[in-house]
Amino acid sequence: MFACSPQEDALPTATVTQAANQIDLIVNGDYIVTMDDAATVHAGAAVAIDQGVIIAIGPAAEIAANYSASETLDGQGRVVMPGLVNGHSHAAMTLLRGVADDLALMDWLTNYIFPAEVEFVDAEFVRIGTELACWEMIRGGTTTFVDMYYYPDVIADVVEKCGMRALVSATVIDQRSPDAESAVDSIQKGKEFVNRWQGRNSRISPIFGPHANYTLNAEQLRATRAAATEAGVPVSIHMSESPFEVQYSKDTFGVTSIELFESIGFFDGPTIGAHVVWPTEAEISILAKRNVGVIHNPTSNMKIASGIAPVTDMLAAGVRVGLGTDGAASNNDLDMWEEMRLASFLQKVEQMNPEVLPAATVLRMATIGGATAIGLGESIGSLEVGKRADLIQVAFDDVHHVPTYDVISHLVYVTDEQDVASVVVDGTLLMRDKEFLTIDTERVAEEARTLAANIKRALEERNR
Amino acid sequence: MFACSPQEDALPTATVTQAANQIDLIVNGDYIVTMDDAATVHAGAAVAIDQGVIIAIGPAAEIAANYSASETLDGQGRVVMPGLVNGHSHAAMTLLRGVADDLALMDWLTNYIFPAEVEFVDAEFVRIGTELACWEMIRGGTTTFVDMYYYPDVIADVVEKCGMRALVSATVIDQRSPDAESAVDSIQKGKEFVNRWQGRNSRISPIFGPHANYTLNAEQLRATRAAATEAGVPVSIHMSESPFEVQYSKDTFGVTSIELFESIGFFDGPTIGAHVVWPTEAEISILAKRNVGVIHNPTSNMKIASGIAPVTDMLAAGVRVGLGTDGAASNNDLDMWEEMRLASFLQKVEQMNPEVLPAATVLRMATIGGATAIGLGESIGSLEVGKRADLIQVAFDDVHHVPTYDVISHLVYVTDEQDVASVVVDGTLLMRDKEFLTIDTERVAEEARTLAANIKRALEERNR
Repeated sequence: MFACSPQEDALPTATVTQAANQIDLIVNGDYIVTMDDAATVHAGAAVAIDQGVIIAIGPAAEIAANYSASETLDGQGRVVMPGLVNGHSHAAMTLLRGVADDLALMDWLTNYIFPAEVEFVDAEFVRIGTELACWEMIRGGTTTFVDMYYYPDVIADVVEKCGMRALVSATVIDQRSPDAESAVDSIQKGKEFVNRWQGRNSRISPIFGPHANYTLNAEQLRATRAAATEAGVPVSIHMSESPFEVQYSKDTFGVTSIELFESIGFFDGPTIGAHVVWPTEAEISILAKRNVGVIHNPTSNMKIASGIAPVTDMLAAGVRVGLGTDGAASNNDLDMWEEMRLASFLQKVEQMNPEVLPAATVLRMATIGGATAIGLGESIGSLEVGKRADLIQVAFDDVHHVPTYDVISHLVYVTDEQDVASVVVDGTLLMRDKEFLTIDTERVAEEARTLAANIKRALEERNR
Repeated sequence: MFACSPQEDALPTATVTQAANQIDLIVNGDYIVTMDDAATVHAGAAVAIDQGVIIAIGPAAEIAANYSASETLDGQGRVVMPGLVNGHSHAAMTLLRGVADDLALMDWLTNYIFPAEVEFVDAEFVRIGTELACWEMIRGGTTTFVDMYYYPDVIADVVEKCGMRALVSATVIDQRSPDAESAVDSIQKGKEFVNRWQGRNSRISPIFGPHANYTLNAEQLRATRAAATEAGVPVSIHMSESPFEVQYSKDTFGVTSIELFESIGFFDGPTIGAHVVWPTEAEISILAKRNVGVIHNPTSNMKIASGIAPVTDMLAAGVRVGLGTDGAASNNDLDMWEEMRLASFLQKVEQMNPEVLPAATVLRMATIGGATAIGLGESIGSLEVGKRADLIQVAFDDVHHVPTYDVISHLVYVTDEQDVASVVVDGTLLMRDKEFLTIDTERVAEEARTLAANIKRALEERNR
């Protein structure tokens, strides 16, 4: 049942400690939820980690006998699982969470979000907002995220320092933005950003983020794809998010969004499509055939009333579907546990069938499914020997985990972000028993509150 | 702006301490969200409580000058608001959370829930399960709940000891149940229960809980209503929950559920209807005209695919609508914060309109709206001088509350049950800074886990 082959005759402890079996980290758990293809769950087990890699998974006693680690996390009352993969976010928008809610999309955008962005989004805003987001994501057990916002160098800097894993998009958009003058300028700056960050840190993948087909024309979309292909990186893009977008695409291009992308060769390289709420049956086939990674964002899709994505249809067609939070301005947090629950609940009630999107399926979407959708399925997303060590310990000692019949059910239908105890990315502890090891949380909170107070004052004056 | 009229010339402190202004409790907050008719929110204020009653609400400094309290809760980083009202639950079913999920309703009921209940539900099960539920509800800021399960005396005992407020139903059902032989027997036992508990403890209202119109015939429904009317107590009943129920009612009675209740005079006394997913327009008018309290349970309705209740239509028609969690077996927790979010999100996406059910409206449903729906709107549900002191302090120092633009938005769209710091019911502290003062949590957890292990073994044997 166990994936590793522990040595049968362990060397005497003293020798082991000094020898080849000295490793970096052992993470114990009452249960290890591997999310491997066989959906293996080990009881009373441990994960052995060295130089960022999972080198063994086995019974806790055998791991303890075979390895001596610099640091060991106790497993009592803990469930170990892969870190969560947030496939679509605008991290710095944590600074705009709750700035305005319950408004029609255009009122919300034109009177609150855009004015706040025009006036306040600069490198400093992005640094503070992204740090705040990384703090929140680490707290909740997210280890990898795909981001799309301005000043990608700043985002990548923050990711590098806080220890998370991320795909950071250089946003390409056909308007003056906080960090570029035009689409041409943003593509050029994107190339420079990708060039600076490619190969620099294995945790950070610089990619292109063409915003959408209602903010870029066909030529600009093609040019962005070409730049990504030339650099050998993926693109992340908003795709078939709202009825507005579908109608705009039909009116402007004569075809719906995904048909447009297919027709202009946009899917010739790896693509991450965020939202995908309104694909036709034919478009779902295209997504499957072209290996497009789809990121489902149920909270955002519900809160700003974008619609209900055909998740089960996409999964049935073989589309790679992960989960994401979108930005905190339309969520209003970065809680992947809630995304799991909402993904399942929303499909069940829409189809009037409680059997669809069961717990195990949404847990896959939040881990290995999401990792595969964003092109990292070979290196993260499940706990298997040889993979990078991105994993979390979830405490199961809270009242809502009493009693526990089925660990998978509890992870999906009960667990909150505040239950996450410890977080490891690439073999390094980022949070240990709720203590943050890579982020100065007091400074970030103070900087965020100060900046938000200025934004609030400015918006109140503007909307008076 | 403040509701109280603090004395202008405070007496010297020494005199005050010894005199009439010595009170039980002062609760401070950066914000006091009153949920009164004017939706007043006080900044830097305090609530003064004596003998279970709110005697003043005013600026923190003035309350401190005018009253000397036996205990004072600091308000820094805290938001004070009315305790949440969970209008529909089967508390003891916490013991069955996660026992089975993602199944068709009849498979779930007949192969898991009913067998577990037949074999295991006795007075001890109900005691442990209700204690576990009260622990979880106090932790999450719920101060009042409406319960429907077996052994109501045991439920009322637990509520009496843990200090919460509850409407406890004697379940009436036309089958052999854990605590009665038949519908006639359950009505008789219900009368005895109500008789025992009426007037015994102002926090506990014994009521009747006729299960539904598919588990009771018209005569039994009438008899239960008559018993409730004779005793002067409300009834709580499942109402128009699922397409199955609507069809059953049409087939059996020739009318839909709410039409049936109206035709047999069931609404002649105060009624709490749980779920109400499928009312017709005419039925919504009946609910409004007859002052029926409706409890919306979005998580349960989504998870077991009952449907999407027409909440905004009911509110527009003047129906009193509160929120509930249903039992933890179909939820799988008792988190009223999630019910608020889901209520709002689900209406928004169904109607494709982000403006419907805004934060302030769902916060009302979870507090004064729910209190009114269950008949306690005069005494609880808002923070006003003269009302019973049921209130909570929510900590706003977690990362997901950074930054805070609007307290109401954050309470609804961000706050988790784990943010609740302190809970007061009827002027008595039940939880102080996350310390439970009325429940032996270690004992309850151990008893619940032991019982659940037995249930798990029995179900595995049965379904082998």
